[in-house]
Amino acid sequence: MNIQLALDRLEIAEAIELTRKVESSIDWIEVGTSLIKEFGVASIKEMKQAFPNKQIVADIKTIDNARYEFELCFDAGADVATVMGVSPIVTIDACMEVANRYQKKVMIDLLNTSAEQKRDLMKYTDAIFCEHVSKDQQEELGSQNHGTKQSVFSGFQVAAAGGIKLESIGDLARSLNPAVVIIGSAITKAENPAEAAAQFKQLILQSEGK
Amino acid sequence: MNIQLALDRLEIAEAIELTRKVESSIDWIEVGTSLIKEFGVASIKEMKQAFPNKQIVADIKTIDNARYEFELCFDAGADVATVMGVSPIVTIDACMEVANRYQKKVMIDLLNTSAEQKRDLMKYTDAIFCEHVSKDQQEELGSQNHGTKQSVFSGFQVAAAGGIKLESIGDLARSLNPAVVIIGSAITKAENPAEAAAQFKQLILQSEGK
Repeated sequence: MNIQLALDRLEIAEAIELTRKVESSIDWIEVGTSLIKEFGVASIKEMKQAFPNKQIVADIKTIDNARYEFELCFDAGADVATVMGVSPIVTIDACMEVANRYQKKVMIDLLNTSAEQKRDLMKYTDAIFCEHVSKDQQEELGSQNHGTKQSVFSGFQVAAAGGIKLESIGDLARSLNPAVVIIGSAITKAENPAEAAAQFKQLILQSEGK
Repeated sequence: MNIQLALDRLEIAEAIELTRKVESSIDWIEVGTSLIKEFGVASIKEMKQAFPNKQIVADIKTIDNARYEFELCFDAGADVATVMGVSPIVTIDACMEVANRYQKKVMIDLLNTSAEQKRDLMKYTDAIFCEHVSKDQQEELGSQNHGTKQSVFSGFQVAAAGGIKLESIGDLARSLNPAVVIIGSAITKAENPAEAAAQFKQLILQSEGK
C-alpha cells in the first residue's frame, strides 16, 4: 500500500519544505488541484525537480480538453494525472490515449459518479480508481465522515481519499485494501508532520502483516 | 446578448494581444481553464489589469474545494467564476455563498449533468447556466455538432458554449436566446479576429432587431 501525500492550499516552496520532512515515509506526491489552479503547471515541474525519484501525481481534475491538459501534466514531469469520472467518456478515452503514449498512468476520480457511470468506467482496466470523499463533503459531514469502506472497483487498482486519519487507516486498510491511500491534512497539518507520516507508514506495514 | 470571448491554449501575453484586437466587439472575457491550469491565477489577474472595464469570467471549473477556489478567482479580479453542475450540491452552495459575499456571479457549467442534477440546480436562481458542448465532444462530433438548441433553463440566465460559428449564431439566438454566447476559436483562430468578432456582433444585433 502506497502513501500518497496530498499537498493543497500551500505555496510551492512550502510544499517542497514540508515534503522534505516526510519524504522517507511517503511514496507518491500529489500536487493538489489548488496548487495547480493557483500556480499553474510550474507547481508540477518544481515538485518533480525537487523529488525526481518519487511518483508525482498531478491532481488536475480534467473534465474537458483532455489531450491538452494531460500533455501539460506529463511534459511537466507528472507520472500520474487525474480525470473526473463524471466526464464524458470521450474525455476519459483521450486521457487514456495520452497516458499510454507517454507510458504514464491515469487516476479516475470517482467523486459524485453515478452507479451507471461507474459501470461505464470499468473498461479502463489500466486506470487507478480513486474513491473520494471531497473536501466540501468532508466539511459538511464533519466528524461523521469515516471515508469510503467499500468499492465496486475492488478488482482494480484503488486509491482512497478524503479525511483519512491515523484512527481510521487500519479500518480502511482492512475493508477497502487500497493500492494507494491519499493523506493530506492528517500529515500536512499535524503538529509534527514527520512523526505523523511515520506513524501512518507503521500502521500500514502492520496492516500488511509486515 | 453578450459575447464572451473564450481564451484557451494561449500564453497570457498572446491572450492580451488578441483581446486588444477584438475589444470593441466583445463584452465579457473568459480566462479559459487551460490558461488557469497552465499559468495559475496570474492569468486572471493579468487579464483584469489589462481590461479593467470588461467582465472577467474565470473558467476555473470548480468541482471541490469551492470556497478556496472561488476566493482565489474573485481576489484575482474575476467578476464571474464557473463551477461544474456535476459537483456535489454542497460545493455549489459554497460557490454561491462566496459569490454573494463578494457581490460577484456564479456560472454553472452544465457539461454532462443529468436531468436529475439539472432539476436540483434550479434552486440557484441567481446563477448563470452554461449549456456546454465540450471541446472533447466537439472533436468527436466534428461537423455534426450544431450546439445546444434547447435548454430546460429557458427561464434563467443562460450562456451557450461549444463550437459556435458565424453560420450558427443566428439559429442559436432564435432557438435558445441566451444572455451570453461564448465564442472561442471562431474568433481567436480566425484569419482576421477583429473582423470575425465584428461580424458576430453585427449578427447578434440583427437577431435582436437592432
